[in-house]
Amino acid sequence: MKPEPRSTHFNAAGEVHMVDVTGKDITVREAVASSMIRMSAEAAESIKRGDSKKGDVLAVARLAGISGAKWTSHLIPLCHAIPIEAVSIDFDWMETAESAEFQGSSAWTLRCIATARTTGKTGIEMEAMTAASTAALTVYDMLKSIDREMVIHQVRLESKSGGKSGVFLRESSE
Amino acid sequence: MKPEPRSTHFNAAGEVHMVDVTGKDITVREAVASSMIRMSAEAAESIKRGDSKKGDVLAVARLAGISGAKWTSHLIPLCHAIPIEAVSIDFDWMETAESAEFQGSSAWTLRCIATARTTGKTGIEMEAMTAASTAALTVYDMLKSIDREMVIHQVRLESKSGGKSGVFLRESSE
Amino acid sequence: MKPEPRSTHFNAAGEVHMVDVTGKDITVREAVASSMIRMSAEAAESIKRGDSKKGDVLAVARLAGISGAKWTSHLIPLCHAIPIEAVSIDFDWMETAESAEFQGSSAWTLRCIATARTTGKTGIEMEAMTAASTAALTVYDMLKSIDREMVIHQVRLESKSGGKSGVFLRESSE
Amino acid sequence: MKPEPRSTHFNAAGEVHMVDVTGKDITVREAVASSMIRMSAEAAESIKRGDSKKGDVLAVARLAGISGAKWTSHLIPLCHAIPIEAVSIDFDWMETAESAEFQGSSAWTLRCIATARTTGKTGIEMEAMTAASTAALTVYDMLKSIDREMVIHQVRLESKSGGKSGVFLRESSE
Amino acid sequence: MKPEPRSTHFNAAGEVHMVDVTGKDITVREAVASSMIRMSAEAAESIKRGDSKKGDVLAVARLAGISGAKWTSHLIPLCHAIPIEAVSIDFDWMETAESAEFQGSSAWTLRCIATARTTGKTGIEMEAMTAASTAALTVYDMLKSIDREMVIHQVRLESKSGGKSGVFLRESSE
Amino acid sequence: MKPEPRSTHFNAAGEVHMVDVTGKDITVREAVASSMIRMSAEAAESIKRGDSKKGDVLAVARLAGISGAKWTSHLIPLCHAIPIEAVSIDFDWMETAESAEFQGSSAWTLRCIATARTTGKTGIEMEAMTAASTAALTVYDMLKSIDREMVIHQVRLESKSGGKSGVFLRESSE
Repeated sequence: MKPEPRSTHFNAAGEVHMVDVTGKDITVREAVASSMIRMSAEAAESIKRGDSKKGDVLAVARLAGISGAKWTSHLIPLCHAIPIEAVSIDFDWMETAESAEFQGSSAWTLRCIATARTTGKTGIEMEAMTAASTAALTVYDMLKSIDREMVIHQVRLESKSGGKSGVFLRESSE
Repeated sequence: MKPEPRSTHFNAAGEVHMVDVTGKDITVREAVASSMIRMSAEAAESIKRGDSKKGDVLAVARLAGISGAKWTSHLIPLCHAIPIEAVSIDFDWMETAESAEFQGSSAWTLRCIATARTTGKTGIEMEAMTAASTAALTVYDMLKSIDREMVIHQVRLESKSGGKSGVFLRESSE
Repeated sequence: MKPEPRSTHFNAAGEVHMVDVTGKDITVREAVASSMIRMSAEAAESIKRGDSKKGDVLAVARLAGISGAKWTSHLIPLCHAIPIEAVSIDFDWMETAESAEFQGSSAWTLRCIATARTTGKTGIEMEAMTAASTAALTVYDMLKSIDREMVIHQVRLESKSGGKSGVFLRESSE
Repeated sequence: MKPEPRSTHFNAAGEVHMVDVTGKDITVREAVASSMIRMSAEAAESIKRGDSKKGDVLAVARLAGISGAKWTSHLIPLCHAIPIEAVSIDFDWMETAESAEFQGSSAWTLRCIATARTTGKTGIEMEAMTAASTAALTVYDMLKSIDREMVIHQVRLESKSGGKSGVFLRESSE
Repeated sequence: MKPEPRSTHFNAAGEVHMVDVTGKDITVREAVASSMIRMSAEAAESIKRGDSKKGDVLAVARLAGISGAKWTSHLIPLCHAIPIEAVSIDFDWMETAESAEFQGSSAWTLRCIATARTTGKTGIEMEAMTAASTAALTVYDMLKSIDREMVIHQVRLESKSGGKSGVFLRESSE
Repeated sequence: MKPEPRSTHFNAAGEVHMVDVTGKDITVREAVASSMIRMSAEAAESIKRGDSKKGDVLAVARLAGISGAKWTSHLIPLCHAIPIEAVSIDFDWMETAESAEFQGSSAWTLRCIATARTTGKTGIEMEAMTAASTAALTVYDMLKSIDREMVIHQVRLESKSGGKSGVFLRESSE
């Protein structure tokens, strides 16, 4: 009989612990995560104007994402602190079909892609996920006075490499 | 001519600042935010088993969400530190139609609802959003060894009350 | 039937939450906590020499205790962040009878007393307890190269005042 | 003449510094520390009920202990930040003789054992001590509404291994 | 005989404590601090180009200064955590005479002005000083690959108001 | 044509990122930074008295500097967290000519020298700079009740070694 799949964060007694990685190999590991923020045309315009002026929402969100990566091991209870050797945050705009949620006005979607690298004993997925999530929350904070209804969606891992579990690459599906 | 809507986090020169709230009234304010995590049946089973044993994914995520609320002013660059006087995190399961993303297997969606209250000069929306987001990231971390494809979606503000801008209540739409 | 006593940190469903204090009165509150460190004569001498030179173990421990008080709401998961308006840390030496643990040599006990005050909606007991505990851990860290066997004992609340639950004063008993 | 034993945290001038470990070997190191919390029968019952329901004091304390280990280098002033590669927290109940302190009622003692591992240049004793101490403080916080008189005692190092100073194993004595 | 002036951070025994402010009045308080960074023409050019592109050194430094203000109570050991209700960071360029230090090339000086406000029981000078200092350190970090010889000078309080000690306004002198 | 010098913290698109150091060699690196605090004779006397009593301003500032080094990667947005393996903070007094700023009274200058070492992939300059800066801010905080006009000046890198960019040694010039 196949055993039930089980989170590695629990021991045999079902209690949480920080997984022992002392015996694991040190390798270069990379993770890419993304998040999306769907917003009104008004909010999107506000960001785009910022690209050519000084009031740059994305510059603030990018720094928040990088800082967020550095806070990961204090935010996520069972996460190891690992040497974060590179973080970058990229943004692009995606077309969104008209949506009921925005009551007929065409909505915009901003995508945030966070890439992080380490040379260590365990993966850097949570740092990339936290960076993508923190950047999106910061966009929300910057623009909530314009559009309180913004929604963050699709925070997810896009790919990872390095370590014993090998390469993961999400099949695109949306 | 109507002025362009503008994030309050920028001054007239387009530079970011922490908004001056010294003159604002102190009132009781509440915010409710939610997040959803879509996962495979296998991952959902793993959580549900935990409800009756000691290895409880949701208990860990709940604590992470509460801690996340307390970290908000350090994570979100222009956020004020306010007195967080109550935080609670609730979870429920939602039915999800069969989804292409999970390749025919029926997927499950866990919803996290974070409620936060303050007696202060500015709202507590970002604390509720950060709590909901951190709880969801923690669920991901706890179960990524079972289902790396989990997706966090719909991190959003459900309602807020208190303060000059009054009550906000999202019209449900998805 | 008398209900079972129950931690206020759990809701009716048995789930943790940060207790709602929005409706509580703001009053001046004080708490005093203490800790003791039992150590070898050699370690005690090392501290006492420091009192008259620059290498002052207690000065380091005193600062660590004050910083520890400021970290309380991040260390103790369900603790509210409150305005810490005063912290002081005092040390004195207590006579200890000869102890089996120190194999016949006379042992010394250093007592640390932490006093903290707030004007707020909830008590400052945990800040005083954390300060006393952190100061003791720092003494251990400073002297572990001399006496690894040191023991911290009797971390406890001595008194509290302010708030609806009124005054608590421990009856001395050891 | 034998020189006086001296804390390695002081330099020749008696001033504190963070000890230089650049030249030390990288080895696997482990430390085990423990703490005890003596409490009333009522408080002990409250924990034990939790083991079979969702309101689980020990689950909260366990997570707080693991987080506490990760905060050690910021709490203990002269402590190095080292890669914490494993942390686990175990609890067990110990029999306690009737005690004057609890006025005739039989008291219970909960023991917390924290085990931490690193692969680094300096030992992980302080992380284990801080984990054991933070877990105990959290038990106090969770149950202080039931029993404010609880006492944390015997926070101490049980064993360490790895590094030049070799193995330490406390002779049990209490 | 006039008593020796004495830091309020020491008690009568000469030991540090966090000053008790429970009895002080709550008033609006403001502090302005400044810092200067002297740099080569090359480094100054690099910043100025950034004003019109996206790679904006000052935007990064401004955010770091605001974050620095929020970290003050954890960085400065005896500082109270107070409600920071407004922070802004402004930069301007000052003419500098040719300087020996830059070997004949004309040097540039960037001035950073940090303004912070609170409604509280104690002043916000340290938050303004820490903001000005952190912003300057960040400029150094961003440009050290171009000019490692940059010097931060004149970190100082420019003015403060509010509280019992009244208004302070530095007489300009340099 | 020689390209414009460019901060390594920007990518080709002019956006900030945390520089990728995964491929860099691990070497022992050291950095020395200094800061100066110019103060009135009264403030200087207050410190000097402390050298022989318990109320020791420099002991507090030394610890704050060491802690500051450990906070660097959270304060400076694009800084990597590196293993800080040694930090020391030294103070000495420098003669200062009579200065207009102190209105005829002879002023004193305290110099703080921070030395930090790592075995890592990137340099430790920012840790040394932050330590020197934080120590100076703490001196200001401790003595601002005596001399609010104190000025921190000359926060600068004195030397660095290790890594591909080799040795840097500032030519003394002031």
